[in-house]
Amino acid sequence: MYWFYKKGPKNNLCDVPGVRVGHLTLEDPSRGVHTGITAILPPGDNPYRDKFIAASHRINGFGKPLGLDQVRELGEIESPILLTNTLSIGDACRGLLDYMIDLDPTIGRPTTINPLVLECNDGNINDIRLMALEPGHALEAIQSAREDFDQGSLGAGTGMVCYGLKGGIGSASRVLEVQDKTYTLGALVLANFGSTQDLCILGQKLGPDLVQEETEDQGSIVTILATDLPLDSRQLLRLCKRVQSGIARTGSFSGHGSGEFALAFTSCPNPSIQDPDLNPIFRATVEVVEESILKSLYLNQSKRAYSGKVFQSLQDRARNRGVILPDLATD
Amino acid sequence: MYWFYKKGPKNNLCDVPGVRVGHLTLEDPSRGVHTGITAILPPGDNPYRDKFIAASHRINGFGKPLGLDQVRELGEIESPILLTNTLSIGDACRGLLDYMIDLDPTIGRPTTINPLVLECNDGNINDIRLMALEPGHALEAIQSAREDFDQGSLGAGTGMVCYGLKGGIGSASRVLEVQDKTYTLGALVLANFGSTQDLCILGQKLGPDLVQEETEDQGSIVTILATDLPLDSRQLLRLCKRVQSGIARTGSFSGHGSGEFALAFTSCPNPSIQDPDLNPIFRATVEVVEESILKSLYLNQSKRAYSGKVFQSLQDRARNRGVILPDLATD
Amino acid sequence: MYWFYKKGPKNNLCDVPGVRVGHLTLEDPSRGVHTGITAILPPGDNPYRDKFIAASHRINGFGKPLGLDQVRELGEIESPILLTNTLSIGDACRGLLDYMIDLDPTIGRPTTINPLVLECNDGNINDIRLMALEPGHALEAIQSAREDFDQGSLGAGTGMVCYGLKGGIGSASRVLEVQDKTYTLGALVLANFGSTQDLCILGQKLGPDLVQEETEDQGSIVTILATDLPLDSRQLLRLCKRVQSGIARTGSFSGHGSGEFALAFTSCPNPSIQDPDLNPIFRATVEVVEESILKSLYLNQSKRAYSGKVFQSLQDRARNRGVILPDLATD
Amino acid sequence: MYWFYKKGPKNNLCDVPGVRVGHLTLEDPSRGVHTGITAILPPGDNPYRDKFIAASHRINGFGKPLGLDQVRELGEIESPILLTNTLSIGDACRGLLDYMIDLDPTIGRPTTINPLVLECNDGNINDIRLMALEPGHALEAIQSAREDFDQGSLGAGTGMVCYGLKGGIGSASRVLEVQDKTYTLGALVLANFGSTQDLCILGQKLGPDLVQEETEDQGSIVTILATDLPLDSRQLLRLCKRVQSGIARTGSFSGHGSGEFALAFTSCPNPSIQDPDLNPIFRATVEVVEESILKSLYLNQSKRAYSGKVFQSLQDRARNRGVILPDLATD
Repeated sequence: MYWFYKKGPKNNLCDVPGVRVGHLTLEDPSRGVHTGITAILPPGDNPYRDKFIAASHRINGFGKPLGLDQVRELGEIESPILLTNTLSIGDACRGLLDYMIDLDPTIGRPTTINPLVLECNDGNINDIRLMALEPGHALEAIQSAREDFDQGSLGAGTGMVCYGLKGGIGSASRVLEVQDKTYTLGALVLANFGSTQDLCILGQKLGPDLVQEETEDQGSIVTILATDLPLDSRQLLRLCKRVQSGIARTGSFSGHGSGEFALAFTSCPNPSIQDPDLNPIFRATVEVVEESILKSLYLNQSKRAYSGKVFQSLQDRARNRGVILPDLATD
Repeated sequence: MYWFYKKGPKNNLCDVPGVRVGHLTLEDPSRGVHTGITAILPPGDNPYRDKFIAASHRINGFGKPLGLDQVRELGEIESPILLTNTLSIGDACRGLLDYMIDLDPTIGRPTTINPLVLECNDGNINDIRLMALEPGHALEAIQSAREDFDQGSLGAGTGMVCYGLKGGIGSASRVLEVQDKTYTLGALVLANFGSTQDLCILGQKLGPDLVQEETEDQGSIVTILATDLPLDSRQLLRLCKRVQSGIARTGSFSGHGSGEFALAFTSCPNPSIQDPDLNPIFRATVEVVEESILKSLYLNQSKRAYSGKVFQSLQDRARNRGVILPDLATD
Repeated sequence: MYWFYKKGPKNNLCDVPGVRVGHLTLEDPSRGVHTGITAILPPGDNPYRDKFIAASHRINGFGKPLGLDQVRELGEIESPILLTNTLSIGDACRGLLDYMIDLDPTIGRPTTINPLVLECNDGNINDIRLMALEPGHALEAIQSAREDFDQGSLGAGTGMVCYGLKGGIGSASRVLEVQDKTYTLGALVLANFGSTQDLCILGQKLGPDLVQEETEDQGSIVTILATDLPLDSRQLLRLCKRVQSGIARTGSFSGHGSGEFALAFTSCPNPSIQDPDLNPIFRATVEVVEESILKSLYLNQSKRAYSGKVFQSLQDRARNRGVILPDLATD
Repeated sequence: MYWFYKKGPKNNLCDVPGVRVGHLTLEDPSRGVHTGITAILPPGDNPYRDKFIAASHRINGFGKPLGLDQVRELGEIESPILLTNTLSIGDACRGLLDYMIDLDPTIGRPTTINPLVLECNDGNINDIRLMALEPGHALEAIQSAREDFDQGSLGAGTGMVCYGLKGGIGSASRVLEVQDKTYTLGALVLANFGSTQDLCILGQKLGPDLVQEETEDQGSIVTILATDLPLDSRQLLRLCKRVQSGIARTGSFSGHGSGEFALAFTSCPNPSIQDPDLNPIFRATVEVVEESILKSLYLNQSKRAYSGKVFQSLQDRARNRGVILPDLATD
């Protein structure tokens, strides 16, 4: 068995109690629109009132995240997290603010709120210059959030390309025993990075066999970690730093043009774990990120871009090239 | 004479050749709207094509800047810089993207752009929950940019409060001789921080004499440094770090709720200054930031907030309290 | 009254209960030796066993501190803190390790210890190339630590020069009420930075009147903050960042060659203060650093360097130039 | 073939023209001494006079490096780099300073020097509490530096343990074509981290088959990158950040207790590479670090610790457990 830790029942971010995820997918092939928004909601109904301990880390800064500086300073989040395409940060931000201002009458009286919007460039598939997403779409993504969700090409993942293949949303979780208590650690990635030749699956360098054409390592990856582990902000930052190791396990070297950011939060307000107990949590972080990326490839279908070019799914490409893929569930 | 270096002819950011500044002021007292956008344009007509060496620094991260992570990683800027109120980042971002996408057909084919939007909370004077600014206002601010500009309560400065008094936009510049060549260093601040009791003017602790009521040190300050000095990104970061010293000279201790960020760029693409020659540039940085903050107070008028409360200008308050203010120009 | 907060009974770092400071001064004018070591001991008898929450901040990195990276990662200290001259870090480190290894038999079985040694260059007065300090001197400094200590030109401060005048060790403290409890915040500086022309005393720019010859802003300043406030590592880092503001109040712009580092620790193991309550603590940090620097100048005497040049004390210089100095205690 | 880029003629750090490496090994089994110092010398005879563009990165800060803060600020190195055991930093520093002060009479007149000493804890094999290394040993390591060197258990690598097996010094290099010119990128690691179960060799998770007893991921890894590529400090930092990905390829998750630092320098004083050309260099960085770590395991022998416990080499363990190891040279 490749994986070290026990998977959660859904094996996704929503195994963390109270965490919800919603997708808004915008598809209009006649206009070249293939994009969307994914919303991650921390537990409870008002994160501005009931903030969450958090941390964020810049792995490679070719990206345009909104809200991370305040997370770095204060070690907390106070809004849902939106993922979308690069040129829709502004509209997503406006929609998120509309939602929060409607939710909480104290925002702006006088303190404001720190909206969290992260992005990848889906311009390989989506005609990104159209900026087709509007603030209302962000509201829809938030309002559609449920305690389970689909992966692959929907929400922010709609137009993403990963290792030259169809990428998008992937997620996994692990169940951990720490000090005789059971906790959950989940990851959700928006995977849009890497070139085919570098792809490793469960340690096997399958990339070279899967290559059809030269591709550049560009695009980006956003990683959200959620947990109920009693960690403080400094410790969550240490988790965020291990996200790079999870990405590396899938073969990428974190290319120049790949905006790579990690954001972690915990639903537990009372930190109590000591640093020497972090090792299993670090190992699980690497593992859950690795599996999330692979799932964004496995749980996907080939898709035609606005330009006419087809981005194959991993499964279709493997079939074409006669490559046998490992089974993520059982290997 | 308090100041050490020679002031530029305009004594503002536009003394740096090619730099332009524009304001869009939105005032609608009947609705409680007192806000705006200020646009800073680096030289030339297309910063996406002709990028500028840059750096940014987080002094105190209680703020919501957009675009700084990419500046940290790549050491360059590629868009105009917009300043606005906290809840209008999304709309300003959208307007900035509309402008740039219209300007350059290569954006998003496939590489995207890093929009720069920084903010302060003008909710003391402006009914910020209305989110009255729209993307079109950002366009207007950019298009109005000229090689000179007014200071005080206009553009993003319209609703700002500094040291409990009417704040907003302030700017100053210095002329420096380095290695037998003449260069300019300019600062522009959006000043919205501090409590009255802490105010120092040219070293004189006048704050206690100017206090009328207890105020908390909150709000924020954004500082933009522009220059034509041949500095690289690492050196510009060292300048950005000295911005805190300039703020401290006006009396503030950089309060918990004060989002303080600095962003610096140079119009010179060929770095050639060695670090041991930086001292006069560091001293000038501190000085130009100090004077910019003071000018945001001096060049201002009292203003009535949407709540009815009046925020006095420094001049009005000093007259009320019988305090003689130093003369910035001659002292 | 210039100062905002109440001073502690000793008005130095040892007002924080349990904190001890010791000096080892090495003077041998015939060889040109004027140097030393200052040791700061956190409370208790074994900081390796009973670690302290801590943080550190690099203001300007032209310096050679030992041990700060681990403080950044783990947010704690586990050894006394030594201050010395730049070329004696190695010997001071060895002496500190000898002391700790003798104290605790578990060190190195298998985990090692993070020794903390910070430095300034006393080469203006001390013939630093002699490297006259030996490991045993570090032991003497540690063993001489008491709950009160002298300031000025002794210990690590023996050969330091600040604002072109005789500098060295300075210290101050403040008593704060937070949430109905009384706490102490203390600072100790090793002050060796600045050029005379920039010196400000209680806001008065006296530097230009005190200048005798042109001096460059070089040298460095190490700042140690100690407290019993219930702060976590992230919050202590926020305090460390305000040290720059305290330095700026004395006039310096943090010159290129000035290694400026801050290290803070608390004796309270249970953080309980919320960030919105930090403002008085931030203001007190700036104030206590400002006063510490000034005391390093006020509590000093003129000294002849190994080269024969005399570095005047502030008092002597003021007398020479007919400048009336403010009274730190009463102004 | 697993490797992407062409190896240099020696396939070690000394393929970078002018770079020299020396080892001082101290073995005295009767006292339990198994330790040493490895010296890396940049080209030329006086790095203090002719400094090198450099960068450093903290991957995981449970470590005690000396000198990295100044590298972060100034982006350059000015001394040889020493690697040794954790409790010998002080003595190594003193020896390095003796060497440099003897070499250059301007040091300390008045500017000092930034000595670079990095460490791992060899306490599993070496009786580290003895602190058997003396300053003179550092001199010997420096003076023994040549344009080629052995790997495995010598110099600082003498007592190191990696993935529960005998670790130590490993090194590799790659030859790259950038803009029609040929450059070399080399890595040298001091490998002392990981637990056996996590070991991956060329993507194969062989760790579980090699486990003999439970081991914790502790220890540390220092990585030195040297090159003649025309990169600036910001770009070298981007290389340093990819070191984590190379470590992750060998299976480790960068454990809590693993001090992981990277330091890179270039012998080219004139940066000219643009960031979009960095991708092959990033990929080569990951690759050269991965191979260096594996070579520290492959080029080694089993060794008895001062406690009597034997730490097996990878080859011996594989033979014991009937595991066929991939061939690094041909696979």
